Amino acid sequence: MKLNILFGGASFEHEISIVSAITLKEKLSNYELNFIFCDQDHTFYLIDASKMKATTFSRGEYKKMPKLTLSQGSFVQKGMFNSLEISATVLNLIHGGDGEDGSIAALLDFFSIKYIGPRIDASVFSYDKRYTKWLCAARGVKCLESQELSSSEHSNIQIPYPIIVKPSRLGSSIGVSIVKEESKLDYALDSAFEFDNSVIVEPFLQGVKEYNLAGFSANSKFCFSIVEEPQKEEFLDFEKKYMDFSRSGHVKGAQISKELELKLRASFEKVYKNLFEGALIRCDFFVVNGEVYLNEINPIPGSMANYLFDDFEGSLKLLANSLPHTKRAKVNYEYIHSISKAKGK
Amino acid sequence: MKLNILFGGASFEHEISIVSAITLKEKLSNYELNFIFCDQDHTFYLIDASKMKATTFSRGEYKKMPKLTLSQGSFVQKGMFNSLEISATVLNLIHGGDGEDGSIAALLDFFSIKYIGPRIDASVFSYDKRYTKWLCAARGVKCLESQELSSSEHSNIQIPYPIIVKPSRLGSSIGVSIVKEESKLDYALDSAFEFDNSVIVEPFLQGVKEYNLAGFSANSKFCFSIVEEPQKEEFLDFEKKYMDFSRSGHVKGAQISKELELKLRASFEKVYKNLFEGALIRCDFFVVNGEVYLNEINPIPGSMANYLFDDFEGSLKLLANSLPHTKRAKVNYEYIHSISKAKGK
Repeated sequence: MKLNILFGGASFEHEISIVSAITLKEKLSNYELNFIFCDQDHTFYLIDASKMKATTFSRGEYKKMPKLTLSQGSFVQKGMFNSLEISATVLNLIHGGDGEDGSIAALLDFFSIKYIGPRIDASVFSYDKRYTKWLCAARGVKCLESQELSSSEHSNIQIPYPIIVKPSRLGSSIGVSIVKEESKLDYALDSAFEFDNSVIVEPFLQGVKEYNLAGFSANSKFCFSIVEEPQKEEFLDFEKKYMDFSRSGHVKGAQISKELELKLRASFEKVYKNLFEGALIRCDFFVVNGEVYLNEINPIPGSMANYLFDDFEGSLKLLANSLPHTKRAKVNYEYIHSISKAKGK
Repeated sequence: MKLNILFGGASFEHEISIVSAITLKEKLSNYELNFIFCDQDHTFYLIDASKMKATTFSRGEYKKMPKLTLSQGSFVQKGMFNSLEISATVLNLIHGGDGEDGSIAALLDFFSIKYIGPRIDASVFSYDKRYTKWLCAARGVKCLESQELSSSEHSNIQIPYPIIVKPSRLGSSIGVSIVKEESKLDYALDSAFEFDNSVIVEPFLQGVKEYNLAGFSANSKFCFSIVEEPQKEEFLDFEKKYMDFSRSGHVKGAQISKELELKLRASFEKVYKNLFEGALIRCDFFVVNGEVYLNEINPIPGSMANYLFDDFEGSLKLLANSLPHTKRAKVNYEYIHSISKAKGK
């Protein structure tokens, strides 16, 4: 199985994407992998597998490696006399901006390159937490009440403390704060608005049960990971999440009833169907009084949530062989021809 | 004022984009224009202004013109010894697929090229009629009730006849039918599913009042066109719409009360704000018993709805000078550095 791992990106999560890619090198040892790095200037490089370590990037050594450009059907390494096509299916492993906001999806679609990852519309509904709420409302999935704040307009918070303040469009807890009293609000808002001009506020549920479930649809059937009850802290800050992205050891399934597992799966399916096809996603849920609430959708989870799958290599292969493909419109100029004819030209 | 008109695209509306571009050549006679054509294979060409006529494209003559590639900050014409940068602001004039589905937006954002047109998220909410309904629901804008059908699942129509059947993701009335009785339904569904695997059904309101309003926000202020009551037929089929795209004569404003005009503007603002910035859009409304319903959003209206603006050249310039720009995340490798340090490497 050949796969091109695309990672990096001009994103606040650039570094965790590098960690994810290094982790997958280990976890996909039976695959034939190419590593394609997108730097913060949006230049692509082909990284030799032996150089897949963090310092290759932090020290700028990647700049000595071959540059790639996008061409119809593949990434291309242009030489003096010939070009090399790097044309296998791409695994979009760029977390956050670029990778999860729809840019990379659009780029790969435009250049007819097959890829694992969310399509443009799925990206928009998962990247922006405001739109995730709209998706939930339309599809009958419960989520926490929330309030949207904009940097240009002052609004009073309607939600009782403690609250959680998040930039609308970032993942990995960047810019996120828990605010227990009003006096701490301004600082939290400043931190969040540093990353986005839209912020959402939700109630902070102390001691709530959290469960993560990853999965995908292949050949119209759902494949689910085990359910994990993530390590419980108030919430994971960036540094802890960063370490979390390098996880590769298999975890134990959460001790939950079959009934709850089925409820989690049902919510996952409602979110995923007719939108996230082609992507392996992780949904993070809250459970309050036996009711399942969607907290967030990770359309490109850290190290692809490999640690939640019994057979990660097999699962990814199954998905890679069941990717959606867009019909491209054919152009035949029939209207122009018929008008030209009518004009006698 | 310099502007690069980007048109064509692998879209069912490829031909009407050509017509739009030819019309704008005439309407923007005081601008310095370049014409960039995207053919159905996604190759870009620089079209000489004197060759901007329909047959250049229908006869394939464009293929003899210089090819362009995307580069950071501009389209580039590569020569044997040097390269020419075509670097002015782009007007995205690709109707339908590519232009309105978020692909071109993502491409231009990725290559840091400034453009007039909907951003990725705005594209998703206007291109897919299902998501336009979600936008309306979230922002308190009325729209017609509707039912979503998928090609893979059979559902009974819950909406009383007559109904209108539309592919979820196409504009310009392609694949759209009015169905007056159940016996005609299958044929209408077949036509619609030819273009999309998702179809929406709405009640067809005979003799309803329709009004179109175009506008944009520049420097946080809204600029509106006149309100037009479009030419009344059951609905415009593709050929009529095609001719409609070449409109350049100024039209008369609809005879409506100031109150209704303000209602239309208020609905427009709710739809536009914090989503469509950077685009000149046309909203098509129905009015039923004095209530305003959004019918559809045209994020790249035919020939940019030039005929609705008193000073089209001035309006476009105002918008071009107030385009949103995305902050690109800076990468500094601080986590990798701190981890390397901790490891003593």
